[in-house]
Amino acid sequence: MRLAVLHGPNLRLLGRREPEVYGTETLDSIGGRLHELAKELGVELEIHQSNHEGELLDLIENAAERVAGFVVNAGALTHTSVALRDALVGVGKPFVEVHLSNTTAREAFRQRSYLAPVAHGVVLGFGGDSYLLGLRGLVTHLYQTS
Amino acid sequence: MRLAVLHGPNLRLLGRREPEVYGTETLDSIGGRLHELAKELGVELEIHQSNHEGELLDLIENAAERVAGFVVNAGALTHTSVALRDALVGVGKPFVEVHLSNTTAREAFRQRSYLAPVAHGVVLGFGGDSYLLGLRGLVTHLYQTS
Amino acid sequence: MRLAVLHGPNLRLLGRREPEVYGTETLDSIGGRLHELAKELGVELEIHQSNHEGELLDLIENAAERVAGFVVNAGALTHTSVALRDALVGVGKPFVEVHLSNTTAREAFRQRSYLAPVAHGVVLGFGGDSYLLGLRGLVTHLYQTS
Amino acid sequence: MRLAVLHGPNLRLLGRREPEVYGTETLDSIGGRLHELAKELGVELEIHQSNHEGELLDLIENAAERVAGFVVNAGALTHTSVALRDALVGVGKPFVEVHLSNTTAREAFRQRSYLAPVAHGVVLGFGGDSYLLGLRGLVTHLYQTS
Amino acid sequence: MRLAVLHGPNLRLLGRREPEVYGTETLDSIGGRLHELAKELGVELEIHQSNHEGELLDLIENAAERVAGFVVNAGALTHTSVALRDALVGVGKPFVEVHLSNTTAREAFRQRSYLAPVAHGVVLGFGGDSYLLGLRGLVTHLYQTS
Amino acid sequence: MRLAVLHGPNLRLLGRREPEVYGTETLDSIGGRLHELAKELGVELEIHQSNHEGELLDLIENAAERVAGFVVNAGALTHTSVALRDALVGVGKPFVEVHLSNTTAREAFRQRSYLAPVAHGVVLGFGGDSYLLGLRGLVTHLYQTS
Amino acid sequence: MRLAVLHGPNLRLLGRREPEVYGTETLDSIGGRLHELAKELGVELEIHQSNHEGELLDLIENAAERVAGFVVNAGALTHTSVALRDALVGVGKPFVEVHLSNTTAREAFRQRSYLAPVAHGVVLGFGGDSYLLGLRGLVTHLYQTS
Amino acid sequence: MRLAVLHGPNLRLLGRREPEVYGTETLDSIGGRLHELAKELGVELEIHQSNHEGELLDLIENAAERVAGFVVNAGALTHTSVALRDALVGVGKPFVEVHLSNTTAREAFRQRSYLAPVAHGVVLGFGGDSYLLGLRGLVTHLYQTS
Amino acid sequence: MRLAVLHGPNLRLLGRREPEVYGTETLDSIGGRLHELAKELGVELEIHQSNHEGELLDLIENAAERVAGFVVNAGALTHTSVALRDALVGVGKPFVEVHLSNTTAREAFRQRSYLAPVAHGVVLGFGGDSYLLGLRGLVTHLYQTS
Amino acid sequence: MRLAVLHGPNLRLLGRREPEVYGTETLDSIGGRLHELAKELGVELEIHQSNHEGELLDLIENAAERVAGFVVNAGALTHTSVALRDALVGVGKPFVEVHLSNTTAREAFRQRSYLAPVAHGVVLGFGGDSYLLGLRGLVTHLYQTS
Amino acid sequence: MRLAVLHGPNLRLLGRREPEVYGTETLDSIGGRLHELAKELGVELEIHQSNHEGELLDLIENAAERVAGFVVNAGALTHTSVALRDALVGVGKPFVEVHLSNTTAREAFRQRSYLAPVAHGVVLGFGGDSYLLGLRGLVTHLYQTS
Amino acid sequence: MRLAVLHGPNLRLLGRREPEVYGTETLDSIGGRLHELAKELGVELEIHQSNHEGELLDLIENAAERVAGFVVNAGALTHTSVALRDALVGVGKPFVEVHLSNTTAREAFRQRSYLAPVAHGVVLGFGGDSYLLGLRGLVTHLYQTS
Repeated sequence: MRLAVLHGPNLRLLGRREPEVYGTETLDSIGGRLHELAKELGVELEIHQSNHEGELLDLIENAAERVAGFVVNAGALTHTSVALRDALVGVGKPFVEVHLSNTTAREAFRQRSYLAPVAHGVVLGFGGDSYLLGLRGLVTHLYQTS
Repeated sequence: MRLAVLHGPNLRLLGRREPEVYGTETLDSIGGRLHELAKELGVELEIHQSNHEGELLDLIENAAERVAGFVVNAGALTHTSVALRDALVGVGKPFVEVHLSNTTAREAFRQRSYLAPVAHGVVLGFGGDSYLLGLRGLVTHLYQTS
Repeated sequence: MRLAVLHGPNLRLLGRREPEVYGTETLDSIGGRLHELAKELGVELEIHQSNHEGELLDLIENAAERVAGFVVNAGALTHTSVALRDALVGVGKPFVEVHLSNTTAREAFRQRSYLAPVAHGVVLGFGGDSYLLGLRGLVTHLYQTS
Repeated sequence: MRLAVLHGPNLRLLGRREPEVYGTETLDSIGGRLHELAKELGVELEIHQSNHEGELLDLIENAAERVAGFVVNAGALTHTSVALRDALVGVGKPFVEVHLSNTTAREAFRQRSYLAPVAHGVVLGFGGDSYLLGLRGLVTHLYQTS
Repeated sequence: MRLAVLHGPNLRLLGRREPEVYGTETLDSIGGRLHELAKELGVELEIHQSNHEGELLDLIENAAERVAGFVVNAGALTHTSVALRDALVGVGKPFVEVHLSNTTAREAFRQRSYLAPVAHGVVLGFGGDSYLLGLRGLVTHLYQTS
Repeated sequence: MRLAVLHGPNLRLLGRREPEVYGTETLDSIGGRLHELAKELGVELEIHQSNHEGELLDLIENAAERVAGFVVNAGALTHTSVALRDALVGVGKPFVEVHLSNTTAREAFRQRSYLAPVAHGVVLGFGGDSYLLGLRGLVTHLYQTS
Repeated sequence: MRLAVLHGPNLRLLGRREPEVYGTETLDSIGGRLHELAKELGVELEIHQSNHEGELLDLIENAAERVAGFVVNAGALTHTSVALRDALVGVGKPFVEVHLSNTTAREAFRQRSYLAPVAHGVVLGFGGDSYLLGLRGLVTHLYQTS
Repeated sequence: MRLAVLHGPNLRLLGRREPEVYGTETLDSIGGRLHELAKELGVELEIHQSNHEGELLDLIENAAERVAGFVVNAGALTHTSVALRDALVGVGKPFVEVHLSNTTAREAFRQRSYLAPVAHGVVLGFGGDSYLLGLRGLVTHLYQTS
Repeated sequence: MRLAVLHGPNLRLLGRREPEVYGTETLDSIGGRLHELAKELGVELEIHQSNHEGELLDLIENAAERVAGFVVNAGALTHTSVALRDALVGVGKPFVEVHLSNTTAREAFRQRSYLAPVAHGVVLGFGGDSYLLGLRGLVTHLYQTS
Repeated sequence: MRLAVLHGPNLRLLGRREPEVYGTETLDSIGGRLHELAKELGVELEIHQSNHEGELLDLIENAAERVAGFVVNAGALTHTSVALRDALVGVGKPFVEVHLSNTTAREAFRQRSYLAPVAHGVVLGFGGDSYLLGLRGLVTHLYQTS
Repeated sequence: MRLAVLHGPNLRLLGRREPEVYGTETLDSIGGRLHELAKELGVELEIHQSNHEGELLDLIENAAERVAGFVVNAGALTHTSVALRDALVGVGKPFVEVHLSNTTAREAFRQRSYLAPVAHGVVLGFGGDSYLLGLRGLVTHLYQTS
Repeated sequence: MRLAVLHGPNLRLLGRREPEVYGTETLDSIGGRLHELAKELGVELEIHQSNHEGELLDLIENAAERVAGFVVNAGALTHTSVALRDALVGVGKPFVEVHLSNTTAREAFRQRSYLAPVAHGVVLGFGGDSYLLGLRGLVTHLYQTS
């Protein structure tokens, strides 16, 4: 079973950007930990980052043919992109939404997610661990329903 | 007289994506039918699809010099892109907004269109036929005002 | 196959009333063009106008037994009449909502339609041609589903 | 003591119209049951239906001189007619609002009733039995206060 | 110069209906006083009452050919009828909106008037005198602009 | 067939508390009348009052195993308790919501009921008779569907 | 009987200020016409203008001892001054609110008046004649209730 | 290190209650799996359920002296209890909010959580696994910060 | 004269809980100061704390027979409990609402109080002194009206 | 220690103005009682009233150099004056907001106070005693923090 | 060319008042810098401060006859004074709105400006430099259009 | 010191696009003037335009290493892009938001800026001069704080 992890806009800044909100772990470090956990859970993983909504849509459309599900941290697009929601629903594969910070405790505009209502599950606020918990939850779900 | 048809994000998925909402006709099939109708109406047609808002803006900016109007299904960008609205108003050519589904019967966030208030006309809910009706309406309008 | 076209309140004023909004074509002229198109599409047509919501409800209730669908321009009742919505849903025949003007570009209270969410399709802004496009769309739909 | 039962728009469709919402009992059947109960409770009954708001207003104005109260199912006018509210308050006779379906579980626009705040009581969701319960409640109230 | 006074729904109840809100003067008495004032101001007057929105629309459409303006107390339709607004705007004659009670001091739903923003002037709260002040204001305006 | 009647917070005060709103009948008197009607309708009845939301939840959970449905006057919890709604939906037995006063005519916060949208039916405003009408309606419904 | 007319902020600009909204008549001219009408109606008049809310409050407090009522055009303070409302209510004399323009047809913030709900009557949109109609209405009212 | 798991109202119904929303696993089964995971992670666990908000507050106040953090599924109280929020903040121990269902995809009133903005992290939608992921995330967090 | 002081949920935590918001004085210390002031003012006092809404309702119902009024700090229930409001209104004794912190300066949901509009008076923000000021104000009021 | 008491607009009317809302005590009487209490508490007092927002701002700016804090009843300016808030915050001295009536039980526009969120404490509804309680609370606070 | 700079309420406090928001520069210092820049740009300048809305209105009315435009920092009146807006529009001279702080980053009520929509331009957040930038922008605009 | 100027979507159309809103100056002309002013102020400048949100994010991420701040006209993305806000905050360099038109006077959706609350300053409405004023303000700020 193969899964994809998607990082949205500005996540390359991780570790440098507002560390009091997002912590000091870099995207590479999270990626390393995700690959380890994937090995432990017996799944293959591909990881992508893009600042371009259109690239993320292309990615979802293409990856959907080879992966069983997605772990998605859409960054700021979470709150503004109906297109991302439509792509994830359109390809018909389950996905988990994750965020580093607890978005429910931040600005009002970050409390609306276009993705959450169509996600299988949501994990918020555990820093880099949000990805790991999300991956774990998605894999369990996929084994149960396959 | 030359016209452009623009397909926004995720429309390449047509036929596969949520067929109970969007039907089973593919983008190619709609394109074929549009070219036929264009011939019947005596107009030339160019058809573009992009998942990238920026590409659509570039397209509108460039195409505006050779076309008399646009038929636009902006997909999810309909509800989120002020930039698309500004581009279509900015180039000063009339356009018709079309949607496959009846967006007024869907989620609240799909009921706001940034494009509709500046469109010449709007056609919703006739599946692939929405494009044909929109093209017909636009051509009639252009012949009347030219 | 027989269809009904319904004109709601104030549409008798067409041609005289606010021509910058509604154009100069009269209801009779639109009627003539509708009958021509109906002949071309091979359908029979009956056309009614009333300023009385109750009469429109009676009409729908009665016509429903002999027609396969409706093209409806409910005028101002579009924005205020739940009863019209209930009648059209209640008789179980598909209908298309049409408007001469692009109502999405007008006052806030004209942007809510009680009919649109239960219509098969919606056509806005093409002047008298809105009726013709709506009729064409409805007939295509009825042939496809019959 | 004489009472009036008023049926508003589209209620003639009962039995045919959306049976999953409104059930299969016809207006005639409800009328029969109401007359039986009236006899049992020792009151006279007159029953009216109209699709015309104006006719209902005329009816209330006229009937008010001979009846002690009203059982009213205003159908869709419940949600849109201030005039009906004004008429019922204006004639100064108590009335009970009844609905076949539980309107609190339906579309947002059906959850506002112009009549309820000025009604003596409200009965929702019991199908045809809503009328019977409403009649029973009104008669008890009238005997207590007379 | 000829003018029309329109009384909307439930105004026949005047004198009987909620006298603490509407006073005890009857519609006939107001009519008598209006005819006197009309004579004094040198204008002809026709006065109509209807509980039917459709009849009021027909009246406006017909009267518009013989009158220079309207004094309108649309009663409860003030707050719910877009059609009445459209008719008054559609015939292109100035009108004055009057109310017996001061509607700004009543229920929230009575504080929105579809007519006021397209009226020449508005008079509220003077009981039957609202009509007289409105007529006076309209006549002055018509003499100034004719 | 056995049914349960639930009285929520503060209903023990009945007869003493704001008699101009709630009347002068006591809870005991209503209970007596309910038992009489139950006998007439051939059903058994258990009646409970509690000021504690948690106790009401426990009661619903336990009673659900022996009763066919509930008549519920949740008092103030109607407007604030999602837990009560969840319990009633969770045990899967139909219930009728009743209120002594016509809550639609009271403060804005009393016009939202968490229970009403998931109730079989709703009865408001008939004083103690609301319970009797509700019981009658529930029993009829249960006989029809059993 | 003595009455006071109060002009609020910026009304000294009348005749110069936005004539398409407020007309070309000056405050002096309106004053002259008011004195004439007062003579005709047999009442004494004092007229004040101030750009200072505090001065208007002082004026109301002082004048209240010698006048029977007020005609008030509070200008922009209409929409922002609770203090003016409190002063007018506090002195317990009836007043009529007048405006030169039809404020219901202007910006949203001009559609809320703190004064209107506590005024005896309201006159809007008749230019300088609004004052005359308001004075006439107030005098009639005072004669009726004295 | 000792932790507490709190189950709020109606969770005893789990397995029976709306299985299409909440799944078929019982609270006991989840408890068993939690104890296993706790052993694996080297922490002690105490698990409580109550239908009474007051009992939950007492529990938090008492447990706070012996536990390092909480995993909380407050059920319906999530959306209505400020007191629960205050208790969890008041005792100054970190907690994770978990829900069986994806509450962002349910009724509007379930989309507001009083707890989430003051939680360390949030896990939604993974059925019984939500508790396990939440426990894992909390333990990792506590080890990192201790 | 005997009075009751009611402390709502979480107030046992006082002194430990968020001292930057609530200060460091304990409930016992406040109680001691209240008893002293009561003696000075010549009234008897009983003081209760509960985390259970139902217990507070029972307390109010019972105490009402022996006390002349209440000083109430309902804690978080202030913002969510209609039942508490109903109980305090229901027993017909005056009460004063007090809060340690200035709730108008805190989260939006703490700015709505169900109790304040039916309280005799409100005291906010003086820490433990809020109770003393509230007691003083209540006693003065009771002496004036007895 | 010296303190200032500020009375805002219309408070000179006290005793005459709406006695059912504001009571019959005059501003002079309250002033007398305040001076007495000040003596008892060992503080000096200056008392000002103005109907002019600008004068109140000047007063605050000037008095701030000689007083330790303010007791403020801003009357209607409470609800509309951001400038008053800015002045009180700007001079950096603590103040207590007081009102004669319980503003939370009055019109919606009186329930927003620009001052309350920046006040040290708030006292509402005790008539003239509100000032005394506010003064007492302020003095205690100033002694504690000095 | 002559211009006027207007400082609204509380700006005399500048330098003392909340320096973390408004900085430490005094009004005199800003005035000095403005006069220097005016000399450099070849314009005459008059500078006024008032805490009184009425005085500002009088000032605008009078100055309008001798100045070509205004630089306005209305302080707190920005958010509450329709009268100021009306005065500035009424005299028909362009003005620039300036603020020391970036008001878009402050309390919600500071984010609405009655002046901005009718200003020629807006400058926010540059401390005392906001005035200089505003003056520069206004002068450039006046030279271009004169 | 080096700074970057960013032009967002559709700004290449400047000079052609809606000249009544945006003026006739082209982007090149503004660029020329910006370079001149930069020379005068002693700073280096780089200028970028893109129709692609993703490209703007990449640009900010890259430029941040060599520039001390940004002047940003994000065009339509101002109102829709949380990602742009996050990027500008994320790189931790001050920026000034500028707009050619006065956006506060345009459509409601243009009155919300995601950027303004996190900008150092904002300049609106001076046409091409908005950039020059913004650059000047940013440079002054950077010199003061460096």
